[in-house]
Formats: sequence, structure tokens, C-alpha cells
Amino acid sequence: MSQDFEKLTVYGKSFSGLTADKEALLVEIGPQIKPHLGAVTDEFYQQLLNISEASTFLAGRVESLKKTHGLWMEGLFTGPFDKNFTAQMFKVGDVHVKVKLPVEFMAGAMTLINNRLFSLIVDTFGDDKQRCGQIIAAVNAVTGFSLLVMQQSYQASSLAEELEKFLKISGMSRTLFTNLALAYRDK
Amino acid sequence: MSQDFEKLTVYGKSFSGLTADKEALLVEIGPQIKPHLGAVTDEFYQQLLNISEASTFLAGRVESLKKTHGLWMEGLFTGPFDKNFTAQMFKVGDVHVKVKLPVEFMAGAMTLINNRLFSLIVDTFGDDKQRCGQIIAAVNAVTGFSLLVMQQSYQASSLAEELEKFLKISGMSRTLFTNLALAYRDK
Repeated sequence: MSQDFEKLTVYGKSFSGLTADKEALLVEIGPQIKPHLGAVTDEFYQQLLNISEASTFLAGRVESLKKTHGLWMEGLFTGPFDKNFTAQMFKVGDVHVKVKLPVEFMAGAMTLINNRLFSLIVDTFGDDKQRCGQIIAAVNAVTGFSLLVMQQSYQASSLAEELEKFLKISGMSRTLFTNLALAYRDK
Repeated sequence: MSQDFEKLTVYGKSFSGLTADKEALLVEIGPQIKPHLGAVTDEFYQQLLNISEASTFLAGRVESLKKTHGLWMEGLFTGPFDKNFTAQMFKVGDVHVKVKLPVEFMAGAMTLINNRLFSLIVDTFGDDKQRCGQIIAAVNAVTGFSLLVMQQSYQASSLAEELEKFLKISGMSRTLFTNLALAYRDK
């Protein structure tokens, strides 16, 4: 799949409010936040294990998933939030289709992660109301940006996979299907 | 499409951390938040109009969309968050497929709305750090819950629509397709 990650980065940032100021703030607070991210990850997977619909996807894989998840979270407070970051999140969306994760899992997971991160931020920075508000907005923007890119990728992969399934079941060749689709479109 | 909204409500709440305590808190702060929601809605649509990928979906419809959007936001601070609330969000996801809105728009939109709501909450409740943290968690949970239900619905409608498209293009009947799919599955 060819994908313009530069363009997707610009689109994703505009649609999540991730500005250069917010990016700088995320990197700035990194040293104060990072020591707590291990606990955030542990608690997140504990919550997932308590949701029966989610726990079936985790059996025997929690430790390796925690590692990948931990690296992503560190990245949220490290940067840079460039086309490589986007390409990485795009890959994650694609992997989620391959393991047949329902699309709404990503929205749910990000909500649980934000719940935990916001509570950490209020504890850490809450005495300065204005700064605390700015930090919450920055974290919300960067997790929203990640979710948006993942889901864009998920949707593309998911439709491609549906077409595969249809071709397999119908026994129709891709060429015939494409020609029919074009002929149909011209009508 | 038959759908167990009771079950989807339980699932959605567990996957967004929307507890009874948080629901009560949302309703409690309603009188302080609601007077500001009109401005939140206006600003949200202004942001969307500035994103070229999004603005094409809005042409000539902004005023009527603002009304629906405003009602949903009022509901976030009114409750009850029961199966009727879920059924309503499910319908919204379905409508989004019908107007061919890309799936990631919903995640992006919710991020922009949360950015604005969190800033309002910090301004209004920021002097009490603990309460402010609880309110942010409650708002994040209820918007996450809404997003999750919408996306579950979106995915179901979107796959149904893809199948329609295949059948139309291939000229295959639904019965033949279903029989082939079953035969294929048994192999």
C-alpha cells in the first residue's frame, strides 16, 4: 500500500490539534512523566484483562504487548512527531486488522489510557492550573493523533481484506472484479 | 440489524471507564457546563471548516449539524447513560457510514471536542485540583464511550455496505454468496 505519510501527518495533526507548541511541551515534561509510564501500562493491561471481549486477544501475549506499548508511550513524550512516527502508528493499525481486533477497541483503549494519563498529570502539575490545562490538551492531542492515524490505516486494511475474502468466496479473479467495477462505474 | 443495546452499553462503559460515580458527576456539573456548550459547538465546527478533508462534508449543512451536535453535548451532562443513549450513538455511527465519512473523522472530532471541553473544565474547576481531575476523567469517559459505540456501529454498517457493493458489481445473488461462504467455511 503506497501512502503519503507527510500528508497524513499534516492531516492528522490538524484533526487532533497537535501544534508545535504542544509537541514541545510533551518533550519538556518527558523527564517528569516517563518514570510513571510503566505503571500506566501495567494498569492498562490489567483493565483490558477485566473486559471479557478484550481479554481473549491477550492470552499469552501480555508481556510482549506491554513492551511495544511501553515504547509507544515513551515516544509520546520524546518525539519527534514526524512522518516516521506516523508511519509507525499506521503499521500498528494494520497489525490490528491482521489480528482481527474490532475497530472500536482502539477508541476504548485510548480512552482508558487517557483516563490514567490525565490523572497522573493532575497529580503532577495540578497546582499550576494554567500549565496543567496546557499539558492535558497536549497529551489529548498526541493520543488523538495516534488514534486517528491507526484508524485510517485500519479502515484501509480492513476494506482490502474484505475484498480478498469476497474474491476467495466468489472464485472471481481480481482482474475480472476490477473490470466489472470500472464498467459499473461508467454506467 | 438486530443489536443488544443493553449488552453494548455494559461493554462500552467497561471499555471507557464510565462508572456510576462518573455519570453522577457529569449530571451534577451540568448546570455549570451547559451555558458554555454553544460556544464549544461553534468553535468545533469552525475548526472542522479549516480542515480541507473535513470541510467538504459540511457544505450547506453546518447549521443543522450544529443543532444535532448541541443536543448530543447537552446529553453528556444530563444522562441517563442507558441503552437509549447507546442506541442513539449507534444510529449516529450508521449515519456516518451513509454519508461516507472516513472512520478516523470520528476519532479526530472527539479529540478536538475533548481539547475544548478540558480547557473549559480547567478554567471552571481548576482551583480544586482533585475535583478537577475527577471531572476531566468523567468527561473523557463519556466522550470515549460515545466514540466506541459509534465506531462499533460504523464498522458493522461499513462491512454490510461493502458486501452490497460486491454483490452489485459481481451480479451475484446474496443467497449464492451466502451458500458459497458457508461451503468455503466448512472446508
